[in-house]
Amino acid sequence: MDFVVLAGGVGGARFLRGLRAAAPEAGITAIVNTGDDVTLHGLRICPDLDSVVYTLGGGIDEERGWGRAGESWTVKEELTGYGADPDWFGLGDRDLATHLIRTRMLDAGYPLSQVTAALADRWQPGVTVLPMSDERVETHVVVTDPEDGRQRALHFQEWWVRYRAELPPRSFVQVGVESARPAPGVTEALASADAVLLAPSNPVVSIGTILGVPGLRDALLATPGRIVGVSPIVGGAVVRGMADKCLPVLGIEVSAEGVGRHYGARADGGLLDAWLVAPEDTAEIPGVDVRRVPLLMSNPDTTAALARATLDAAGVR
Amino acid sequence: MDFVVLAGGVGGARFLRGLRAAAPEAGITAIVNTGDDVTLHGLRICPDLDSVVYTLGGGIDEERGWGRAGESWTVKEELTGYGADPDWFGLGDRDLATHLIRTRMLDAGYPLSQVTAALADRWQPGVTVLPMSDERVETHVVVTDPEDGRQRALHFQEWWVRYRAELPPRSFVQVGVESARPAPGVTEALASADAVLLAPSNPVVSIGTILGVPGLRDALLATPGRIVGVSPIVGGAVVRGMADKCLPVLGIEVSAEGVGRHYGARADGGLLDAWLVAPEDTAEIPGVDVRRVPLLMSNPDTTAALARATLDAAGVR
Repeated sequence: MDFVVLAGGVGGARFLRGLRAAAPEAGITAIVNTGDDVTLHGLRICPDLDSVVYTLGGGIDEERGWGRAGESWTVKEELTGYGADPDWFGLGDRDLATHLIRTRMLDAGYPLSQVTAALADRWQPGVTVLPMSDERVETHVVVTDPEDGRQRALHFQEWWVRYRAELPPRSFVQVGVESARPAPGVTEALASADAVLLAPSNPVVSIGTILGVPGLRDALLATPGRIVGVSPIVGGAVVRGMADKCLPVLGIEVSAEGVGRHYGARADGGLLDAWLVAPEDTAEIPGVDVRRVPLLMSNPDTTAALARATLDAAGVR
Repeated sequence: MDFVVLAGGVGGARFLRGLRAAAPEAGITAIVNTGDDVTLHGLRICPDLDSVVYTLGGGIDEERGWGRAGESWTVKEELTGYGADPDWFGLGDRDLATHLIRTRMLDAGYPLSQVTAALADRWQPGVTVLPMSDERVETHVVVTDPEDGRQRALHFQEWWVRYRAELPPRSFVQVGVESARPAPGVTEALASADAVLLAPSNPVVSIGTILGVPGLRDALLATPGRIVGVSPIVGGAVVRGMADKCLPVLGIEVSAEGVGRHYGARADGGLLDAWLVAPEDTAEIPGVDVRRVPLLMSNPDTTAALARATLDAAGVR
């Protein structure tokens, strides 16, 4: 069996780990959001790719959910000592080695997909990890500047990490998306997948960004197996992250049903064959097989159980 | 009073610290060798500039003589974890922040002299620190490969740090020197100096490299004050570093007299008005005021005393 997962960072990474446990014999390909990628201090940083690879490779800081276990922050402190901007990004020493190698390889002309494969070679994630695209796509958030009332576009990381998503977004812009193409392997994986799973990642700035890559949504819709989504909203609230700040911008209700309707029924030109919501939620989406199962990925067992439920809904188990 | 010092790394840095203590009211300009500079892991590293700035700014590891005090090596370990080459260079975490900022500024188009000034702004070395040139000049060492007997050119750092200068050098090549120019401020400082001091740095790959920058030697010879050199050879041996491996390549005897004769008497078209050798050494150089004074820079007092002796020899005290 071959499965494809569309994934953002922490939630996507944990879901992938559960799926790997639930289907150890399967071929799993992760198509990972790169819209959060950013260049800081001259380093190319790919937070979602790194979260996925570190999590699957055993290098993740489990408590924080991102970055490396046993991390130290010496370089960051020294950069601050020089007054170097920005100082709000969590640039760990261990993590930094990954960025250095990535930056050096990109500067040498290697595409991000090859760089990702080279980095993953150390971590052996047991999953094929693909960036959604080799081209740069960076999510910017248009906000109203509280000081002068003018509109400003912030990089997603600045909006999220620096301002903790407290500046109300007016819109999201995927800079560069119009000239992006799916990375090598993405279309091929979708074309031969026995099932495609949408991880419980942010529907706007993670899954939405992946689907915005020209050609990718069509390739997804043409996948021969079923498409099963997992709600990132549990009990009417986000489990993690700031999807509750993002969804209203697109007129999407912050509920399992709202997100499910946003993705839409495959029968009606949408994405979903099945949609998994938490036992405390309800969702009525005509044409979609809605299932209520525990969604919290609190530990390896619950996460693997969730992954098995997605495979059940996909009819491949 | 305005003094100029030609300096390499550790020895030059310590000499400068002594001079600053000996002449706290003087304006001191350091013209620093950049031939040791190297790009590793995409980072531009300037060992001699950093040794000078860290030493004068109180950030140096006093025991090691180079790099930052309280250094850690997390990034380097992680790079090795990825199998990234090279792994032989001492790339500390604190130090790395300096390289990141330098690399970013250079990539943005700032010349090295401005980058150096920006970095020095944190350290307040109390001395104007100038790279010898804004253009890249990199010392390469031609050696005979012990495996196949063919000639190979190694970057100086590889020859020195990786191979510990154990591969006998056949020649030194300053790559890029022909198109280099003295950095802004270098010629001006020499033109108005009350004395120029040659630190006890390597006569070949430090002082020699500085003097190889087209126009710099002429600017030095035109300086209105005296030129005083300090022997890096004490008791017939190097105090530190690998000058004993370098000098014979140019046919220079490894002795205080040998180096003094190599620099030559200013009266005869050479550089020196005065030459300071250790009490246990002798040097007969016609036309040069040779003085025997303690040269070891073992502590701040002896170093300041040495600096005072150079100022005495320059007739400016």
